[in-house]
Amino acid sequence: MKVWDRFLTDRDKQVFGSAGYDAKAGFGQRPALLVIDVSYGFCGHEREPILDSVKHWRNSCGEAAWDAIPYIQKLLHAAREQRIPIFYTTGVDRRPDGFDAGGWRRKNTRSSEGETISGYGSNEIVREIAPQPEDIVIEKLKPSPFHGTPLVGYLTDLGIDTLLICGTTTGGCVRAGVIDAFSYNYYVGVVEECTFDRGEASHAINLFDMNAKYADVVSTEEAVNYMKQTAKGLHDSKIAFPASPSNTAVL
Amino acid sequence: MKVWDRFLTDRDKQVFGSAGYDAKAGFGQRPALLVIDVSYGFCGHEREPILDSVKHWRNSCGEAAWDAIPYIQKLLHAAREQRIPIFYTTGVDRRPDGFDAGGWRRKNTRSSEGETISGYGSNEIVREIAPQPEDIVIEKLKPSPFHGTPLVGYLTDLGIDTLLICGTTTGGCVRAGVIDAFSYNYYVGVVEECTFDRGEASHAINLFDMNAKYADVVSTEEAVNYMKQTAKGLHDSKIAFPASPSNTAVL
Amino acid sequence: MKVWDRFLTDRDKQVFGSAGYDAKAGFGQRPALLVIDVSYGFCGHEREPILDSVKHWRNSCGEAAWDAIPYIQKLLHAAREQRIPIFYTTGVDRRPDGFDAGGWRRKNTRSSEGETISGYGSNEIVREIAPQPEDIVIEKLKPSPFHGTPLVGYLTDLGIDTLLICGTTTGGCVRAGVIDAFSYNYYVGVVEECTFDRGEASHAINLFDMNAKYADVVSTEEAVNYMKQTAKGLHDSKIAFPASPSNTAVL
Amino acid sequence: MKVWDRFLTDRDKQVFGSAGYDAKAGFGQRPALLVIDVSYGFCGHEREPILDSVKHWRNSCGEAAWDAIPYIQKLLHAAREQRIPIFYTTGVDRRPDGFDAGGWRRKNTRSSEGETISGYGSNEIVREIAPQPEDIVIEKLKPSPFHGTPLVGYLTDLGIDTLLICGTTTGGCVRAGVIDAFSYNYYVGVVEECTFDRGEASHAINLFDMNAKYADVVSTEEAVNYMKQTAKGLHDSKIAFPASPSNTAVL
Repeated sequence: MKVWDRFLTDRDKQVFGSAGYDAKAGFGQRPALLVIDVSYGFCGHEREPILDSVKHWRNSCGEAAWDAIPYIQKLLHAAREQRIPIFYTTGVDRRPDGFDAGGWRRKNTRSSEGETISGYGSNEIVREIAPQPEDIVIEKLKPSPFHGTPLVGYLTDLGIDTLLICGTTTGGCVRAGVIDAFSYNYYVGVVEECTFDRGEASHAINLFDMNAKYADVVSTEEAVNYMKQTAKGLHDSKIAFPASPSNTAVL
Repeated sequence: MKVWDRFLTDRDKQVFGSAGYDAKAGFGQRPALLVIDVSYGFCGHEREPILDSVKHWRNSCGEAAWDAIPYIQKLLHAAREQRIPIFYTTGVDRRPDGFDAGGWRRKNTRSSEGETISGYGSNEIVREIAPQPEDIVIEKLKPSPFHGTPLVGYLTDLGIDTLLICGTTTGGCVRAGVIDAFSYNYYVGVVEECTFDRGEASHAINLFDMNAKYADVVSTEEAVNYMKQTAKGLHDSKIAFPASPSNTAVL
Repeated sequence: MKVWDRFLTDRDKQVFGSAGYDAKAGFGQRPALLVIDVSYGFCGHEREPILDSVKHWRNSCGEAAWDAIPYIQKLLHAAREQRIPIFYTTGVDRRPDGFDAGGWRRKNTRSSEGETISGYGSNEIVREIAPQPEDIVIEKLKPSPFHGTPLVGYLTDLGIDTLLICGTTTGGCVRAGVIDAFSYNYYVGVVEECTFDRGEASHAINLFDMNAKYADVVSTEEAVNYMKQTAKGLHDSKIAFPASPSNTAVL
Repeated sequence: MKVWDRFLTDRDKQVFGSAGYDAKAGFGQRPALLVIDVSYGFCGHEREPILDSVKHWRNSCGEAAWDAIPYIQKLLHAAREQRIPIFYTTGVDRRPDGFDAGGWRRKNTRSSEGETISGYGSNEIVREIAPQPEDIVIEKLKPSPFHGTPLVGYLTDLGIDTLLICGTTTGGCVRAGVIDAFSYNYYVGVVEECTFDRGEASHAINLFDMNAKYADVVSTEEAVNYMKQTAKGLHDSKIAFPASPSNTAVL
């Protein structure tokens, strides 16, 4: 039983069943992990029901975010053990005149709201999964982690062939990143429990779309097992990984 | 009553209602029209129920495609009257070894199938809306009309600030194009009756996602009225529009 | 007498004369100014002969930089008077492990050198032409201001059709930016006295190449006169320009 | 004695000598070969002195092109023996209204000239080095082989880490391609005898610039020896190489 089954029509199930989609693409040999926008702006500063959280944080995904974070910790743990490169993305604090917001200004009536909870930045990645010095944090203005950023060049430098993607929102920046990763011909995995959205239908149907055409939607366990099977330390000559990974507080 | 209402949960309606999304962005002053992938591969060679059509054409959207085509004709008619640039996209016939298919090979079990209905190319744009000599046809390998194509440069040359987007699939290439158009800061409209998908839930929820964050989903009538209000002949110095547009057989 | 004439062979002059190159392209109606990499790393912390300056600052262009700065001030002054958007680029301080340097590490034996003159950052834009709050500063890792940055989206948001480009180095980041600006179909000007390089032949021949094929190489006076003729305040709705521009200390 | 030495000033030699440039970057383990724009438009239809050839073909590089072709054959021969992917680029035949020429129209007084020598297309790759079915031919509108093309995705699909680049013009499309290849963090080689330009100073100084900062300028012999040392048949699963390469007529 897939999360999207309750949203598909009977006709949908017949059509996609006969059209050949949903094949398992598999993964390559040189993965990187990409954690998209797991910041206080998208999670809220603490676990709260989404309708409460969204009052303070207009982009909050509420409890779905906090459900995902322990799973993201497991992914990070496995990646750090293998010294697999970890990329985070987050947004950029806006100029006062909003120039750099571009089209975002037009589609949200609350886009000029400031932060109302002190001590937490809306673009600060949540501390439970804080980036470590060896990680690469990419600031972006638009949904896709590739759009207007140096991500492709970094991946080429490392010879990455596979992106394991998680974070938020399923129907926003994750979807945009998956389309671009697919379009550049990477193998793409979306790790289901580590990915979340403010909308239930959007979460489910975007997972469905991505799994049908662009990516393998996998469980955290599958992603961890895959990472464990890859060669260890492929990138030691390029990234200064710590002698012992900072995994102690995790899980 | 929106097409997506039947797919949203009650919580979804509350969350998006309070988060500030769905604002009307409006349009600019220099539009172009972008018709995505309305080829026999995505429509089938004739109007057939989708489950019949998909036997011959694995990407077919069936009757939804043929429902959209008369509306697309109206859009094209209005654009030709105003001498607004019209961009079409379509796919590229694959190499025998499939090299240029990239990631597509991995996610569809039928991706190596050849064409079985003679007289219709899977990448041929359907004749009812055939491109005219002044139109710009962009061949693409990936979902987005921007990915690996000269589209952005063309739009800059023309000073375009608004893209009216339609075609197929809502949850595939239209979605990808809308994300990129939004990311480049164009005003973006998705013309509802002119846009279609093989999946009912995917069609509805992708329209919902795009309308919430990236684009104004509008009716054909709204799009036509908008085009009529723009200045006529803005691009006559760059594109050799015909003295009288080829609209005779339309509608 | 052009700066490049002393470097061209007689045959070069005949060939380019007959091949149709060097046409004057002219400019459009909505310019932006782009000042590339005029930082202490490329200028040195003070005016010094290049062979002295390069001891401290491996990328220094020496006196050529300091010759250009008063001209750049004139350009900035004119742009601020017209409230024309001003973009600056500069580099990013490297990670200790050099990961983000990518290919730069490979081609320069001094690329891992730290800064030796305290009080001046190698990526700090020189104070004589310091960016103002309304300006847009783009950090980049690679030669072109477009590569891996949001520049194209910003230009689209503003409806820019013309880029006046200056800075350094003529044969490095200016050249790369000009190629990309041309490729996106902007009108491109390179302002000669405002553009500099560490190499004499590179400066001259890169100006020659750009003028032949991609850009109009113009004097500061021509660029200023052009800006004065454009409509004033085109971008007031998007950028919070100050009531009176910060031009007092200039010239 | 380098080709650029006669064009550099004494100061240039001192500055670049002390600034750390010109380091040998070396190559990686998975090369591809990229042959840029060696078409009749850039070579002329037969070996002629450039001032004669340019009368018929405004972009002709004359004898320099025909000097390079036997060396390019050697490169191709070595690549085919190793089953290394070969990418060619060439231009696109223009629309009658010139819309797709974009900025090119503005900078060349002869850009609207038609072809005057029958039997040879200006964008046809010269027959002595004609692409074979397994090769990938990329049509492009702008200088760089990466701009508005699917090249990066192809390279990612193949796991390429090194580009050996040759063709024409040194100070045009080769230079643009080298900047982009460097910017994406590929190892880059420019094969000297296989690269040519219509201008003597442009050829020399662009080689100098590229060798200083972005690429290793190497001889054909070095490039061939490097290719021979790479693993053979890395891409057999993705590209249908012929059982015996079509090298018979070569050399």
